[in-house]
Amino acid sequence: MQRMAIDMDEVLADTAAHQLAWYTRDFGPGITIDDLHGRHFHTVVPEAHRPRIREHLFDPTFFRDIPLVPGAIDAMRTLGERYEIFVASAAMEHPVSFNAKFAWLREHFPEIPPTNCIFCGDKSVLGADYLIDDSPYQLVKFRGEPIIFTAPHNVHETRFRRVADWPDAVRQLMADG
Amino acid sequence: MQRMAIDMDEVLADTAAHQLAWYTRDFGPGITIDDLHGRHFHTVVPEAHRPRIREHLFDPTFFRDIPLVPGAIDAMRTLGERYEIFVASAAMEHPVSFNAKFAWLREHFPEIPPTNCIFCGDKSVLGADYLIDDSPYQLVKFRGEPIIFTAPHNVHETRFRRVADWPDAVRQLMADG
Repeated sequence: MQRMAIDMDEVLADTAAHQLAWYTRDFGPGITIDDLHGRHFHTVVPEAHRPRIREHLFDPTFFRDIPLVPGAIDAMRTLGERYEIFVASAAMEHPVSFNAKFAWLREHFPEIPPTNCIFCGDKSVLGADYLIDDSPYQLVKFRGEPIIFTAPHNVHETRFRRVADWPDAVRQLMADG
Repeated sequence: MQRMAIDMDEVLADTAAHQLAWYTRDFGPGITIDDLHGRHFHTVVPEAHRPRIREHLFDPTFFRDIPLVPGAIDAMRTLGERYEIFVASAAMEHPVSFNAKFAWLREHFPEIPPTNCIFCGDKSVLGADYLIDDSPYQLVKFRGEPIIFTAPHNVHETRFRRVADWPDAVRQLMADG
């Protein structure tokens, strides 16, 4: 069975929507999801707000109640019939997030065993056949087949096979493998 | 540069000595390190004590102040000249341990970047050239070259290339690669 590593933030977890919600709670409704097209969240907000949005990512509770990316649960079930699924999160960037991320995964994806949950900052060390990730930084180093999952910030990236969302990923990847 | 994944408990961290210290604190001096020869800690203690030693492993502070395995710091420096070092801990077995383990690694091994610290329950997913681990369970599935690091519980294991301690590992592995 081929192995598929799947990123968490912006792929299983709708981190951008959650950041926007926390931002709006603190600063009011000045930014919309459309403003994030082709850009990272921290580059969109006024400079004076950046320290605060950085604090959000280092809040131990931030990662606990992120909404799911639509279709993620069904996709994990379907893809799990053809691939061995690993979830790989670069949680080392925000070490306070380990417990919240692990609890979130256990809650939403109980079929994925804890042994298949991975926290690693450099995904080039993963010996998987596929990596589905929103981050070109991780994808470019990966040694299997990299697949970019569309997120607002990566829409201009052209170097990787792309899946637009989970229904698209299921269509493409159930035909592979 | 070849990549070397190195386990944490019983390899960098002297977890057996720490378990014994916590056990002795709770139950008095009834067990010595020699009693662990060829056996796992939980099989050596009286059955009535087993729930308590299991609790130790689920105490969030247990993994924070484990002593170092002798020679580990020097070995990481020397091996780091020839190999790219990743530390891989199966922390998912004791999820409360993430923060303590990460903090311990940052304290004792500041030269190993956070991106090279990995928490993963199934090390067969690591695409490294070597894995140094005390656990036959992890070594047998690993896809690179498995190397067993001597710990009391694994002394009868014969399936893997063995290093007796860190000075031995440095001698053997600085000649390889």
